[in-house]
Amino acid sequence: MANCFHGLKSFGAQAPYRWIRSQCLSSLSILGGVYAAPETNRLVASGQTRGMRTNSTAGVEIKRLPFSRVSQRDLAFFEKALPGRTITDPDVLASSNVDWLKSVRGSSELLLRPQTTEDVSQILRYCNERRLAVNPQGGNTGLVGGSVPVFDEIILSTSLMNRVLHFDQVSGILTCQAGCVLENLSSYVEERDFIMPLDLGAKGSCQIGGNVATNAGGLRLLRHGSLRGTVLGLEVVLADGKVLNCLTSLRKDNTGYDLKQLFIGSEGTLGVITAVSILCPRKPKAVNVAFLGCSSFQQLLKTFHCCRGMLGEILSAFEFLDGACMRLLEKHLKLNNPIRESPFYIVIETAGSNASHDEEKLHHFLQEVMTLSLVTDGTVATEDAKIKALWALRERITEGLTHDGYTYKYDISLPVEKIYQLVEDMREHLGDKAKNVVGYGHVGDGNLHLNITSHSRDPDLLAAIEPYVYKWTAGCRGSISAEHGLGLKKRNYIHYSKPPEAVALMGDIKRMLDPHGILNPYKTLPDSC
Amino acid sequence: MANCFHGLKSFGAQAPYRWIRSQCLSSLSILGGVYAAPETNRLVASGQTRGMRTNSTAGVEIKRLPFSRVSQRDLAFFEKALPGRTITDPDVLASSNVDWLKSVRGSSELLLRPQTTEDVSQILRYCNERRLAVNPQGGNTGLVGGSVPVFDEIILSTSLMNRVLHFDQVSGILTCQAGCVLENLSSYVEERDFIMPLDLGAKGSCQIGGNVATNAGGLRLLRHGSLRGTVLGLEVVLADGKVLNCLTSLRKDNTGYDLKQLFIGSEGTLGVITAVSILCPRKPKAVNVAFLGCSSFQQLLKTFHCCRGMLGEILSAFEFLDGACMRLLEKHLKLNNPIRESPFYIVIETAGSNASHDEEKLHHFLQEVMTLSLVTDGTVATEDAKIKALWALRERITEGLTHDGYTYKYDISLPVEKIYQLVEDMREHLGDKAKNVVGYGHVGDGNLHLNITSHSRDPDLLAAIEPYVYKWTAGCRGSISAEHGLGLKKRNYIHYSKPPEAVALMGDIKRMLDPHGILNPYKTLPDSC
Repeated sequence: MANCFHGLKSFGAQAPYRWIRSQCLSSLSILGGVYAAPETNRLVASGQTRGMRTNSTAGVEIKRLPFSRVSQRDLAFFEKALPGRTITDPDVLASSNVDWLKSVRGSSELLLRPQTTEDVSQILRYCNERRLAVNPQGGNTGLVGGSVPVFDEIILSTSLMNRVLHFDQVSGILTCQAGCVLENLSSYVEERDFIMPLDLGAKGSCQIGGNVATNAGGLRLLRHGSLRGTVLGLEVVLADGKVLNCLTSLRKDNTGYDLKQLFIGSEGTLGVITAVSILCPRKPKAVNVAFLGCSSFQQLLKTFHCCRGMLGEILSAFEFLDGACMRLLEKHLKLNNPIRESPFYIVIETAGSNASHDEEKLHHFLQEVMTLSLVTDGTVATEDAKIKALWALRERITEGLTHDGYTYKYDISLPVEKIYQLVEDMREHLGDKAKNVVGYGHVGDGNLHLNITSHSRDPDLLAAIEPYVYKWTAGCRGSISAEHGLGLKKRNYIHYSKPPEAVALMGDIKRMLDPHGILNPYKTLPDSC
Repeated sequence: MANCFHGLKSFGAQAPYRWIRSQCLSSLSILGGVYAAPETNRLVASGQTRGMRTNSTAGVEIKRLPFSRVSQRDLAFFEKALPGRTITDPDVLASSNVDWLKSVRGSSELLLRPQTTEDVSQILRYCNERRLAVNPQGGNTGLVGGSVPVFDEIILSTSLMNRVLHFDQVSGILTCQAGCVLENLSSYVEERDFIMPLDLGAKGSCQIGGNVATNAGGLRLLRHGSLRGTVLGLEVVLADGKVLNCLTSLRKDNTGYDLKQLFIGSEGTLGVITAVSILCPRKPKAVNVAFLGCSSFQQLLKTFHCCRGMLGEILSAFEFLDGACMRLLEKHLKLNNPIRESPFYIVIETAGSNASHDEEKLHHFLQEVMTLSLVTDGTVATEDAKIKALWALRERITEGLTHDGYTYKYDISLPVEKIYQLVEDMREHLGDKAKNVVGYGHVGDGNLHLNITSHSRDPDLLAAIEPYVYKWTAGCRGSISAEHGLGLKKRNYIHYSKPPEAVALMGDIKRMLDPHGILNPYKTLPDSC
């Protein structure tokens, strides 16, 4: 199986750390914890952090909470409970301690690899009693530092929990362990004429448990809705080791509070998801992808409006990238622009049950937007290889950005008509401070990925971006994290999107479910909680 | 505006109570609280219950919890806070004290009609301090006794909170107060070329706040998903009067825990929903309804399988009724069966953006199922009046049942291939104890409405039905309440669908959010919580 993260090959345990400084450190200003120190291009080794109690970077300080440290006796317990799956080898631990962006690094000395729910239960029960902090980890493809330890938290990896438990051919309901890799599940259900309701660039590595824990969005949300609707059941191990079995496979169930919703999107801070039941849509019989050029964002919005009306129920994605993104793809990844150069590009996907109907709808739509001059140029693909090539122009932007320099990443939710105004305002606001300011994302969901690159880490640039970007977003009642979550990096900005009463209630929920705070500490909730 | 409840005209404040005994009392065995005493055909008047501390019916006893009673000083406070909207007139209170099925009756002496969120906040803050119990009430169309007081709880009606706050013509996002009637909202958005994502038989009376509080399902769930996906934001007043403003209008927001999910489906026990933001789909350009006959449930399931494949993205409803339902419709409501008599009938609705494509798909599908002899007869409607007439055969079954005698109602979620087996097993199990055992419901959602009628209330029949029906459901890992909720009637059966750890956690959540238990007591949570 391909091991791709967001279109990039994985570096695995032998990550070329030299690569870090020049290309991959991102948003360091808001990072705390133990991380790669770019000044020295040296990753802080685990052993060096044993005595570390606080860490201060770019004005943000995180203090290690008074959890116990792993003792020889603890190790002996885990080795007995998980023989061969209790990892202390520093080489193996290295890749689990650092996130995909290489922007956050913990110093955990212990990685546990449970295979069963009972294993997870046993681990958490013990850790809760011993006050040992735990960092649940899936595919470790998150972008906000939520999936790696900050200090010496025990890493609980779900990678070996990768069994499909059941698939119902009639209803399309899949039940599987949390550690199943999304791409493997996609292949599994596609062989049975269904598709997974979510699709992400990180599918080659990300795990379904992590997808659910972070409420991942992705490319199919416009059509199939969020995981809050498609996830039918969850099995979760609570902080004290109690197993909460809500793994039902029913489309409808109104017996009391829907507890699974608490764990969807809580980033492992309220419980460890061990199994998932999810509703898979039928595999469409026909798929088309159109790649179009627009002369302005206003024209792009009009095209979107027209598209929703004319493609209606077969529209499965409406994504955009700006001209700056295209230039990065051409320059750094040598991808070819298949159409005439434009200020904006659109990727439209249709998926339906009747190829000729879909083609006719698409044809009428394209005729209409060309006649109205909403679209200046375009190309359509119906074959799998060509479809993949067009999608690559949207999916490989993250990769292109990493080659452009140090990247400040923002994942913003806004009313759709406002999403590009933020990019333009930011460009004007930053002037020549930034190397590139680019915008792309999910138009259909009102979700902008705003990325700002510079030649190297630049505190002045950062000070110009933040809190400007958050204030701008809050001014439009937008969300400062549409789909990436808060993790370690964004948690202290939560008040730009949530009122104090909501944040306080989140703290109450955390204390109720995890009174000793052992689950993924320093994540999701702000310091004020 | 039509004032229909589940296809029946409302009786309003002057309900003909004589009607109750013969037709409307349902599932009395599991009712507690103060209710119509069928033996005497006399509703217990409010005044008579002041001293009542417990109520015992058919072996189930409910004890009034030690809440304060409304004093003159309390009344004076409310009259000052809500002048003209603090109701103590017994005639007005009568209809708010009894549920639509006339099966549960409380003895509240005070009805409050807030107009604003601030009004609700002021009421709850006061009630919480004074330990006065509150029964939030929307359109009072629930079927499980969740929307009326059990004893003397203050009724907090959202009926005057009926303003549309905002509608975004681009995104289709509607923001409105909780008391807006669903049918009014439907008309409002349909004039703007959108539809509400839910449709219920009770639409003429039910309110959007109540729909969300009960996580109502209905006829469009198959296509547009549940309210957990379409509700984007909520404003909720907590038990202590604090306003939780999560009224965002964003399709995606991953900033912390999704608190609104706690209140969706919690039946007013965790907070009072005061405003809702909801995503409305585009109004389809073409709608077709097919009414088909099948010779067996096995053929019906094969038809469903074929339908999902061939109608795919335009399928918007797949409902069924059995021959026994049709006989009730013909006998009691004088409705005509438009096709040949069959053991099973299907209602299929398509909704799409291109009339000729949809008709072609539907035509091919019908040809296929007729050729395969899956369907024995059928008719198709494309005009609005004919569509309504076909839908009436499905929507008016509840009404037909009320004319057939005393009805025991069950709302069961099961794997789709099992849904009719329960009806057959129940029929065999009951033999001639029951007058009629009928099944209908939402095939697409695996949701069976099982109804059993008898000439009058019959404890022996009830003892034969329960817990048989719950055990049968639990044996298939089904849900004992697919969409109706638990309310007063089903709450003590929650353990058939939820494990003890889940029920215990629900209790913890209730205590966290409503430590004095003033919000809709005796509802949703079992006595053991």
